[in-house]
Amino acid sequence: MGDFKPLPSKELHKNFLEKVVELLFNTVVFTTRKDKVLLWRSPEDLLKEFDFELGQNGESQEKLIQVLKNTVKFSVKTGHPYFVNQLFSGLDPYGLAAQWLTDALNASVYTYEVAPVFTLMEQHVINEVCKMVGLEWGDGMFCPGGSFGNGTAINLARFSRFPQVKKSGSKNLPDLVMFTSEECHYSIFKFASFLGLGEEAVIKLKTDEVGKIVPDDLEQNIIKYKDKNVVPLMVVATMGTTVRGAFDPVAEISAICKKHGLWLHVDAAWGGGLLFSQRYRTKLNGIELADSIVINPHKLLAVPQQCSLLLVRDKNLLHSCHSRGAEYLFQRDKYYDSKYDVGDKYLQCGRKCDVFKFWFMWKAKVAPQIKMVMANHGSVMLNYQPLKSLPNFFRFVSQNSSLTRNDIDFILDHIAEIGDALFLD
Amino acid sequence: MGDFKPLPSKELHKNFLEKVVELLFNTVVFTTRKDKVLLWRSPEDLLKEFDFELGQNGESQEKLIQVLKNTVKFSVKTGHPYFVNQLFSGLDPYGLAAQWLTDALNASVYTYEVAPVFTLMEQHVINEVCKMVGLEWGDGMFCPGGSFGNGTAINLARFSRFPQVKKSGSKNLPDLVMFTSEECHYSIFKFASFLGLGEEAVIKLKTDEVGKIVPDDLEQNIIKYKDKNVVPLMVVATMGTTVRGAFDPVAEISAICKKHGLWLHVDAAWGGGLLFSQRYRTKLNGIELADSIVINPHKLLAVPQQCSLLLVRDKNLLHSCHSRGAEYLFQRDKYYDSKYDVGDKYLQCGRKCDVFKFWFMWKAKVAPQIKMVMANHGSVMLNYQPLKSLPNFFRFVSQNSSLTRNDIDFILDHIAEIGDALFLD
Repeated sequence: MGDFKPLPSKELHKNFLEKVVELLFNTVVFTTRKDKVLLWRSPEDLLKEFDFELGQNGESQEKLIQVLKNTVKFSVKTGHPYFVNQLFSGLDPYGLAAQWLTDALNASVYTYEVAPVFTLMEQHVINEVCKMVGLEWGDGMFCPGGSFGNGTAINLARFSRFPQVKKSGSKNLPDLVMFTSEECHYSIFKFASFLGLGEEAVIKLKTDEVGKIVPDDLEQNIIKYKDKNVVPLMVVATMGTTVRGAFDPVAEISAICKKHGLWLHVDAAWGGGLLFSQRYRTKLNGIELADSIVINPHKLLAVPQQCSLLLVRDKNLLHSCHSRGAEYLFQRDKYYDSKYDVGDKYLQCGRKCDVFKFWFMWKAKVAPQIKMVMANHGSVMLNYQPLKSLPNFFRFVSQNSSLTRNDIDFILDHIAEIGDALFLD
Repeated sequence: MGDFKPLPSKELHKNFLEKVVELLFNTVVFTTRKDKVLLWRSPEDLLKEFDFELGQNGESQEKLIQVLKNTVKFSVKTGHPYFVNQLFSGLDPYGLAAQWLTDALNASVYTYEVAPVFTLMEQHVINEVCKMVGLEWGDGMFCPGGSFGNGTAINLARFSRFPQVKKSGSKNLPDLVMFTSEECHYSIFKFASFLGLGEEAVIKLKTDEVGKIVPDDLEQNIIKYKDKNVVPLMVVATMGTTVRGAFDPVAEISAICKKHGLWLHVDAAWGGGLLFSQRYRTKLNGIELADSIVINPHKLLAVPQQCSLLLVRDKNLLHSCHSRGAEYLFQRDKYYDSKYDVGDKYLQCGRKCDVFKFWFMWKAKVAPQIKMVMANHGSVMLNYQPLKSLPNFFRFVSQNSSLTRNDIDFILDHIAEIGDALFLD
């Protein structure tokens, strides 16, 4: 592999990082409406134009800066005001600052000794968000995305009813079904398979004209399956469905769940950010009745990717369901109270710190500013997809807090212009 | 919530971010041996000394800078040469630069249109690492940690043998067992529970005096369970066990797996980085015989947290096992070849880009430099834990590439001085 260059000195590294920061400021962080969201290339063209190759020898710092420039050039600027393609966007400078600090510390959050500030901060934020949901709420965990949180909730529901599954598996359980909206997020099906329940155990409930679960359909299904000696395990209600932003009637669903002994999980990955909105908090009425909830602060609250929370009403359940007591991490003879080591309630071992950016944005009080912008916009819904019997429609998601009314007019004008393509010049 | 301040201008944000970068350079990125790894506080003291509270109003930029300073002050500097506590450490400036760019672009990697460069780059890196394992290797995915990768491999093994499990679940499957070292990572047990197999389905194999699986014990167990009409599903071999760094004899294990029809997964989260070492590549001999492999570049290769790869020999398996075809993301009538949209082979939906830092460090060719440092150090093993019949021992993990021989002498001297405490002053 040839001769190696001597390791560059601190000055060389510092100089390099300073150039990188300047590049990011000028080309990514502080984009304006005059810049492009994306310089579109087809995959085949980008494979020719961008040098993906990993050679035998290291590149010079000058070349590496050019590589970074090209990466930015052909990437989507998700913080651009005209990026309204997905349920996240908007680059918040406080969130970015916190993420850069997190990276520099390169913490993995499993024990107090390795991540003292972040371990206590996670618990503080979980407690605060639990309080915003309801006084009886007990615990939570950060997840690598809402899909994983939804899957974890399904497992908690199963363990809560059949605790033997942790040790001896699901083989001696009765047949189980779970109920969710026909407009639910696809992660419910993926994780039903992963957990050994199977996609067929997920029973899709009818939705009304605005996309909400019809509670009567739920109860009729529960009775139907009970009559077949199948155990109805849980309901996954959605607050903010992926496509139409519908909020299922959680209070009514909860009453049916309580009557028939079902776990209620609320997928509020999208809508849960309304906890922070005085004006729209009522959209979440009934959420406090759930047994578990997923909320993604990286969506509506514009925290940088990723920041996803699974909240659980029962304070002890995450630990009893997930703990394993590995001695090399969670020694019981530590020189501090090992109750602060929360790692064993997680399924992940090494885990990137996702709390600091959320806590820091909250400390800087960015959320209320977002709230105000949302209030001015109202709720609108650019993506396209087929919806039931209708042809493709454009899905406009206005979570981006830097959007103005003029921007929306601009985008709508452009939709007409560009016809069947998604990207704006 | 009181009056809101007007949104600060670009200049205010830029000025803030510049101060943050300067702070990080001076207190985290460029630490020296004179700085402390950690200013130790007990959890109770840190709760008093650090202001975790989230008030009703936003803080000033001056106060926020102070918050960042305190966060750094009480956090562990994982890049410090004397941080040898866990299986990751060392802050690489190219890795950090790449992570900062990733954050600024705030990409989520599921479709080509949203993350064109990173989608193609993931496939390029997966292909390159597959080639380094063996020519027949076909596919892979980035995971939020090695635990998740190991769990995914268990599910792939089950799906590969019993494809009906995706739709109809595991309820009609025969009783299953899987085999792994008694010194395996605890994630195997956590995910066996999560997947509905149960901890008891994980049969622990004996290890020899250096911590390797005894192949004869494996074969005897396979025969024993077959005789009981239990299906031996798979073996999880470990290349670089968590505590002792043992490498299981994978070639011998593979022969037994092939003879009896078992899936072979290799947990090389720790040892897999040796793919990049000319001198120690032979430690991985036999890895090419596996059906799936987990490798964590954030460990031995010092890529910033997190970067974890699951490789799969069968090119089509990830897609057939995980796909769901959600129409709002993976439309079939796109204006580019939708084979470039890899998101549906994942269990995650939104997903942080973990490839760029790895690719960029590779482009800068940091890995061979690490390799040279490793060669100079040899393999040593600071953590403590009980090991079989022995009392606690200190576990010295020398993955940190900025360690010198003098550092190790310094640390060993300090162990004697500090007796039963872990942290170095």
